[in-house]
Amino acid sequence: MAVILITGGARSGKSKRAETRVRAFPGQPVYVATAEALDAEMEARIAGHRARRGTDWIEREVPLDLVPALVASDGGGPRLVDCLTLWLSNLMHAGRDWEREVTELANALPRLKSPVVLVTNEVGLGIVPDNALARSYRDAAGIMNQVIAAVSDEVEFVVAGLPMKLK
Amino acid sequence: MAVILITGGARSGKSKRAETRVRAFPGQPVYVATAEALDAEMEARIAGHRARRGTDWIEREVPLDLVPALVASDGGGPRLVDCLTLWLSNLMHAGRDWEREVTELANALPRLKSPVVLVTNEVGLGIVPDNALARSYRDAAGIMNQVIAAVSDEVEFVVAGLPMKLK
Amino acid sequence: MAVILITGGARSGKSKRAETRVRAFPGQPVYVATAEALDAEMEARIAGHRARRGTDWIEREVPLDLVPALVASDGGGPRLVDCLTLWLSNLMHAGRDWEREVTELANALPRLKSPVVLVTNEVGLGIVPDNALARSYRDAAGIMNQVIAAVSDEVEFVVAGLPMKLK
Repeated sequence: MAVILITGGARSGKSKRAETRVRAFPGQPVYVATAEALDAEMEARIAGHRARRGTDWIEREVPLDLVPALVASDGGGPRLVDCLTLWLSNLMHAGRDWEREVTELANALPRLKSPVVLVTNEVGLGIVPDNALARSYRDAAGIMNQVIAAVSDEVEFVVAGLPMKLK
Repeated sequence: MAVILITGGARSGKSKRAETRVRAFPGQPVYVATAEALDAEMEARIAGHRARRGTDWIEREVPLDLVPALVASDGGGPRLVDCLTLWLSNLMHAGRDWEREVTELANALPRLKSPVVLVTNEVGLGIVPDNALARSYRDAAGIMNQVIAAVSDEVEFVVAGLPMKLK
Repeated sequence: MAVILITGGARSGKSKRAETRVRAFPGQPVYVATAEALDAEMEARIAGHRARRGTDWIEREVPLDLVPALVASDGGGPRLVDCLTLWLSNLMHAGRDWEREVTELANALPRLKSPVVLVTNEVGLGIVPDNALARSYRDAAGIMNQVIAAVSDEVEFVVAGLPMKLK
């Protein structure tokens, strides 16, 4: 069992680093995408990630029910969850209880048999946003990152494509 | 004497880390809050911090006159200043000369006898803000952090609840 | 030959750190400014940087054609490029193909004889910006930082004036 959290800013090389970490484990890798291709900008980004990863990955689109998806795919190859911040955003938009779901994820992760590499974003290092919704999201993301980092075996902070070991 | 600066993003676990560092020093800890409970959002956050800290802290509300408060409480237990960026914001709103006050703080810190752990925020790692006031604040916070870091014995950068030693 | 990339947030002490690194190399240092003094805010910042550096630097204003400027000044003293994110912004505003120009810079850097210290900014660690242009810029800056970091001999991340070694 290994739970690895990769955090960093936008376009910092987090996904690429996470793919490298997943590839180091044996078995066919599973790509757990929390993104849904809802607009052209997102579609282009998803296509770019797919082109880089190659075609030997099992792909799962999991915008909301992450824990069941991880349990269902357990026992096989390593999983890449890309990314937790989008999952959080999906939960909030769907009116789900994100704090409970994050706690459930934190409880589930250490019990999984196959490795899981999770990508997340740091979003709290800029100026305080004007609107209350953005502030709530920023706070939620920070809390989620702390909770998941606490149960992870390794945590890396990626800047300019280069990982710093936090744990 | 020990001056410890804890920096990081919003909800990165800075305050919790700072409390841990303060607890490691002997004596009754003093919580120096620069926040004023001006709205419900801030009130809730203050209540959350207080619930986590426990009730054995001496509490001081110091929105502006930080140096006198640190001098007045010197000789007793360790102090936690939470946080410098809010203090800076208070100074700017009150029309005070923040550069002079930051310099005075930097001059005062090394002369204190009881330990001081200061929490601050990194706010300059996002996109340049549209409005000039936010840009001024962002610049001021960056300058303040450099000045206080220079006189600190230890500086930690907290990401996802995990401290990285900067100094 | 040495290529050193210094990254960090606004007012984090990147330029000062970069100047220290440049000063450690022999020869008269060359300051390659990508900023143009288009408004009072920018003029004040440029003047501040110049006052700190001292008067023994050769100064070049290079808003766009960075690779030719580095080639033309090669063989002399060390160069400080301040900064890449502004250069990127200039390229985008001028309608130039920034991806090609970044690639050309990445190809040129390892072939230069005199040292180059490049300053850049982390801009992707805040909330996702509302407007599409800011998102494009943020993405471009992240990609550029990864590409240049990959060809750099050393990469430092500066927080509160204190460098962390990334590479």
